[in-house]
Amino acid sequence: MVDVAIVGAPGYAGAELTRLVAAHPELRPAQLTSTTDAGRRVGDVYPGLAPYVDAVYVEPDVAAIAASCQLAFLAVPHTAALKLAPVLHRAGLTIIDASADFRLEDPSVYEQWYDVAHTEPDLLAEAVYGLPELDRSRLRGARMVACPGCYPTAALLAAVPALEHGSADPGRVIVDAKSGVSGAGRTPGPGTHFPSVSESVAPYKVAAHRHTPEIAQGLSAVTGHETRVVFTPHLVPMTRGLLATVYLDLTGPISTDEAVALYRERYRDEPFVTVHDAGRMPTTLEVRGSNRAHIGIAVDKGAGTLIVACAIDNLVKGTAGQAVQCANIVLGFRETAGLDTPGPVV
Amino acid sequence: MVDVAIVGAPGYAGAELTRLVAAHPELRPAQLTSTTDAGRRVGDVYPGLAPYVDAVYVEPDVAAIAASCQLAFLAVPHTAALKLAPVLHRAGLTIIDASADFRLEDPSVYEQWYDVAHTEPDLLAEAVYGLPELDRSRLRGARMVACPGCYPTAALLAAVPALEHGSADPGRVIVDAKSGVSGAGRTPGPGTHFPSVSESVAPYKVAAHRHTPEIAQGLSAVTGHETRVVFTPHLVPMTRGLLATVYLDLTGPISTDEAVALYRERYRDEPFVTVHDAGRMPTTLEVRGSNRAHIGIAVDKGAGTLIVACAIDNLVKGTAGQAVQCANIVLGFRETAGLDTPGPVV
Amino acid sequence: MVDVAIVGAPGYAGAELTRLVAAHPELRPAQLTSTTDAGRRVGDVYPGLAPYVDAVYVEPDVAAIAASCQLAFLAVPHTAALKLAPVLHRAGLTIIDASADFRLEDPSVYEQWYDVAHTEPDLLAEAVYGLPELDRSRLRGARMVACPGCYPTAALLAAVPALEHGSADPGRVIVDAKSGVSGAGRTPGPGTHFPSVSESVAPYKVAAHRHTPEIAQGLSAVTGHETRVVFTPHLVPMTRGLLATVYLDLTGPISTDEAVALYRERYRDEPFVTVHDAGRMPTTLEVRGSNRAHIGIAVDKGAGTLIVACAIDNLVKGTAGQAVQCANIVLGFRETAGLDTPGPVV
Amino acid sequence: MVDVAIVGAPGYAGAELTRLVAAHPELRPAQLTSTTDAGRRVGDVYPGLAPYVDAVYVEPDVAAIAASCQLAFLAVPHTAALKLAPVLHRAGLTIIDASADFRLEDPSVYEQWYDVAHTEPDLLAEAVYGLPELDRSRLRGARMVACPGCYPTAALLAAVPALEHGSADPGRVIVDAKSGVSGAGRTPGPGTHFPSVSESVAPYKVAAHRHTPEIAQGLSAVTGHETRVVFTPHLVPMTRGLLATVYLDLTGPISTDEAVALYRERYRDEPFVTVHDAGRMPTTLEVRGSNRAHIGIAVDKGAGTLIVACAIDNLVKGTAGQAVQCANIVLGFRETAGLDTPGPVV
Repeated sequence: MVDVAIVGAPGYAGAELTRLVAAHPELRPAQLTSTTDAGRRVGDVYPGLAPYVDAVYVEPDVAAIAASCQLAFLAVPHTAALKLAPVLHRAGLTIIDASADFRLEDPSVYEQWYDVAHTEPDLLAEAVYGLPELDRSRLRGARMVACPGCYPTAALLAAVPALEHGSADPGRVIVDAKSGVSGAGRTPGPGTHFPSVSESVAPYKVAAHRHTPEIAQGLSAVTGHETRVVFTPHLVPMTRGLLATVYLDLTGPISTDEAVALYRERYRDEPFVTVHDAGRMPTTLEVRGSNRAHIGIAVDKGAGTLIVACAIDNLVKGTAGQAVQCANIVLGFRETAGLDTPGPVV
Repeated sequence: MVDVAIVGAPGYAGAELTRLVAAHPELRPAQLTSTTDAGRRVGDVYPGLAPYVDAVYVEPDVAAIAASCQLAFLAVPHTAALKLAPVLHRAGLTIIDASADFRLEDPSVYEQWYDVAHTEPDLLAEAVYGLPELDRSRLRGARMVACPGCYPTAALLAAVPALEHGSADPGRVIVDAKSGVSGAGRTPGPGTHFPSVSESVAPYKVAAHRHTPEIAQGLSAVTGHETRVVFTPHLVPMTRGLLATVYLDLTGPISTDEAVALYRERYRDEPFVTVHDAGRMPTTLEVRGSNRAHIGIAVDKGAGTLIVACAIDNLVKGTAGQAVQCANIVLGFRETAGLDTPGPVV
Repeated sequence: MVDVAIVGAPGYAGAELTRLVAAHPELRPAQLTSTTDAGRRVGDVYPGLAPYVDAVYVEPDVAAIAASCQLAFLAVPHTAALKLAPVLHRAGLTIIDASADFRLEDPSVYEQWYDVAHTEPDLLAEAVYGLPELDRSRLRGARMVACPGCYPTAALLAAVPALEHGSADPGRVIVDAKSGVSGAGRTPGPGTHFPSVSESVAPYKVAAHRHTPEIAQGLSAVTGHETRVVFTPHLVPMTRGLLATVYLDLTGPISTDEAVALYRERYRDEPFVTVHDAGRMPTTLEVRGSNRAHIGIAVDKGAGTLIVACAIDNLVKGTAGQAVQCANIVLGFRETAGLDTPGPVV
Repeated sequence: MVDVAIVGAPGYAGAELTRLVAAHPELRPAQLTSTTDAGRRVGDVYPGLAPYVDAVYVEPDVAAIAASCQLAFLAVPHTAALKLAPVLHRAGLTIIDASADFRLEDPSVYEQWYDVAHTEPDLLAEAVYGLPELDRSRLRGARMVACPGCYPTAALLAAVPALEHGSADPGRVIVDAKSGVSGAGRTPGPGTHFPSVSESVAPYKVAAHRHTPEIAQGLSAVTGHETRVVFTPHLVPMTRGLLATVYLDLTGPISTDEAVALYRERYRDEPFVTVHDAGRMPTTLEVRGSNRAHIGIAVDKGAGTLIVACAIDNLVKGTAGQAVQCANIVLGFRETAGLDTPGPVV
């Protein structure tokens, strides 16, 4: 058993990590830290976790974490990981960072979009982007992993195969995404107040969301081009789930069946990706509570457009599950360890 | 007071029409017909209408309708209006048809998408498309009005000004739309079963929805071009509301503020359209229960893309409210009569 | 037209009052005040109200209110009305208070449950309880009206007829109530955060909610007894709506039909109350957006228990609509003025 | 590994059983039967199960089931189990029946409430009621288990300790219950249509629900009395979850802390029951997706009433999880096998 720390444990990402680690055959939650809930029992904050995690949130203490853990999951807001990751890394821990701080390879892009200096360029250079379906080779044995954002996870899984294969124009990709409210985290605010969300579909941060450069970075790496990303996130009235509907300009004629075959070939060995038959689209409900990504494809021949939809659970494949998947690879465990149960059927 | 018939009155479109007509200063519901609920009291089907509409649904009977009504709202499935409209029209009634049967000018396009022959080409030729914001001149005094579908209403209001002005490329328009479940009507089915819809965002009929040619027809009329429409509808877990997010290729540089000004100029005299300030996007919640269309605009300069979102209530501006708005114009009433109250604040 | 002030206008109760007053044939919103949103346009806070209310929230200023208004609706938290009501009253205004400050006749009960001194016993003595269905005689011409809480409105409408008639034991009444989230107001918090509310039924303040003594007061007045009230409110995942399920011990045999007849007789002339046929129960959906109270009744003969369910919209009959209904009575208008439109059908 | 059949596998109860059995360390799904979906792949009906259950639904065939399985879960409508259970039982299988057919000990009570003759009195006499928390002794080695209904599960867990202990009057118990929509099953209908359910709390079958005699039977067994049960189920707008709020007449003074202690003592060794501290009530969200029952308690001293709320997931502890728990006991496995993972945190 590997003892792990979850830093920022009572947030939604941290709590899902706690749930997954508690049920994981190889990991054990040794430190659950929180600056806001330190001193409270896990079960007081999440009564559903009480029978499985008999622990108290503690203030994050690097020495204590280093003394008891081999790996740390960081489920903290951006800039907090900038401070924590280097110290824990120097203390010898493996870091699986779910924050945005080490996702963007170019520190100046980070600084432009997050409006704060990137103070750890060396660790950034070492960081491996934690989307195993794109490239898991560098993850094996990595000591600093930057897990993707929830939107980039779905957008990249949807867009990469067609771009990689040259079937789609690398110039511009449109991503219209719909997310459940848990993506906004556990802290209440006007935008997550039940009466404001219910019966409301709301675009937000249109052409201005911080996941845009991350999607662009992932696509550009594949296309060898500066691929422009138009990204429109929408909040929809549900707790979990994220669907990215991606529009790509076809470079030549291709049928829906051929596109499905292309995607299936690309994801043939992926344990968590399903590509649906032509005519079937994924729903967020069917992946709820699991680490799966389900993809549906349609070609609009007349318009020369490829439409790819990818559904994930934003808190699992979009955050905590992906972090565990990365940890499994990094540590040499079976990649699906602790992630191989289906979600509730409805 | 003008006596009207509502044909297909217990469906959602018909019931909203009943509600609006009951509160209308100039219209009176004289015949509420239904093939499935004939004999039941309105208040047994909709207890909330009981105190306002003391009536019984009756079998649709053309002679009875003609004898007592001057105008008929058709809230029936497609093909049913093909049969009813000509008879009522010959009997001297004005027809406001909420079905799809008289929306597509070219009968062969209708036949291709609806897979049934169009048997009324003459009446089709007379029919006026009932989206007043595009062209209300032909509606005045019209006797046969084809009200738009809910998706085309939002898509056209979002796309037309930029295309009309030449700011956007007329070749292809992408419409990513999100609708509440009431758009699927009152008849239960697997796709509208509560546990299947809750926590689910679901694309459906991708690149195959019957509103596609209707949107294309409206845009092509404006661009003078065969404009291709990529249309992806999604079902989201809410009862009412429809948001169309439209992606247009800019023909030249334009700022968001300039685009907002262009849209405001276009809709300056429209009583039901609001164009939000740059930085604000519409939500379906803010138009719920009203006949309004709210529009938000963002320009993605780097990608050369104009993003326009339009929110409506699918059962009001998307169906019943628009039908009443058309009836007001046709009959020479104040256009906002019976439609000038705000919806509930949440 | 009577010019009115709405104090606390951007809260949900205030915003619904704004909506109702804007559409009212005899009332005009002259002052919309707010300590938190002063300076903002109404339409910035509620885009759906923008086309109907072209106004800016202002700081509450008694002199300004008194100079321009004849009546003030107070949509403020408890204790705030204690301060405002006497000043406005002395300035000659009629007060319709939606807060809890003047509901409990006995100041010591107020002090016990609200944990603060009641500083206005004289005005309290003058205040008339604003549930017209119980006794509208004292409301005519009243200058100080205390509108009931949302739970007491539903509970009293459900319980009073049977108790009044002697069909039910006056000793103890059980009220199990279910409310939508808007009842908690517009301020976000952990208990109204979308992910915490969705898929959750949550009892709260069990045997400790402040509406308990208000229900007891209303029932005791009718029974001439100190009637004990067991009151369990539950939060359910919806925005609007309140259902009180009330359990009464029968004093003798009575059939469901007889109980229905008794309730119908009691509410025969009430414009906003419907008593359903035996076998039909009310739902919150059927009263959503309207000022109606719908009641369903069942007798469990074997157990000697009368079960009465009453559904209201917590923001209309439960708050803002009831305040307008009281204003109509106080000012001598038609009681249904501004309240006589059905809510959306779904 | 024990091979099991799930009869009625594509219904919600059957699908949750499929999910639980697929992840169970000792059980293996050998036959998944369906009369309506025979021939379809499991993953076509439930795409989320596809990666875990590579199987096709087959017509229920007793010989095939008997040849390959040792145990059969029956997830069928009432009367269907009456036909299947005896044949499978004679074929040597152990039966875990989730239907209502073998729950009521007295066949005449069954006949009165289900309006059909009970044709299997002998097997009924052998059947053991599958609520392990009440009495698991008879379950060990049983061959015919009748799993409780979802409502009785929550109601009995809430009411039994106080009645058993003599703290509450055995004469009458009031159960006000709130259930998510999945309790109505997978077949769509007017009452489960999304627009009819959303924003609606709806009492149904008041004083007439078929779970009433089952609750009464369970309580009467404990009280040694004919305990009358007043039972009011409500449908609330959520997919999963069931909360029973139970009202008991206290026989003497008891504090909330004492009642909590009594319940904790009663459920001390129960692996799936949590009794909350005084002041905390359970929510359906906290048990969602798990086999847990969480209980909260409040005493209303003045009214002499004990209020106990019990939250379960209607599809897990209320149906499929309980069936697996019973199977574990019957087969001699660890009682929590396959049920010991927490549900998603939101």
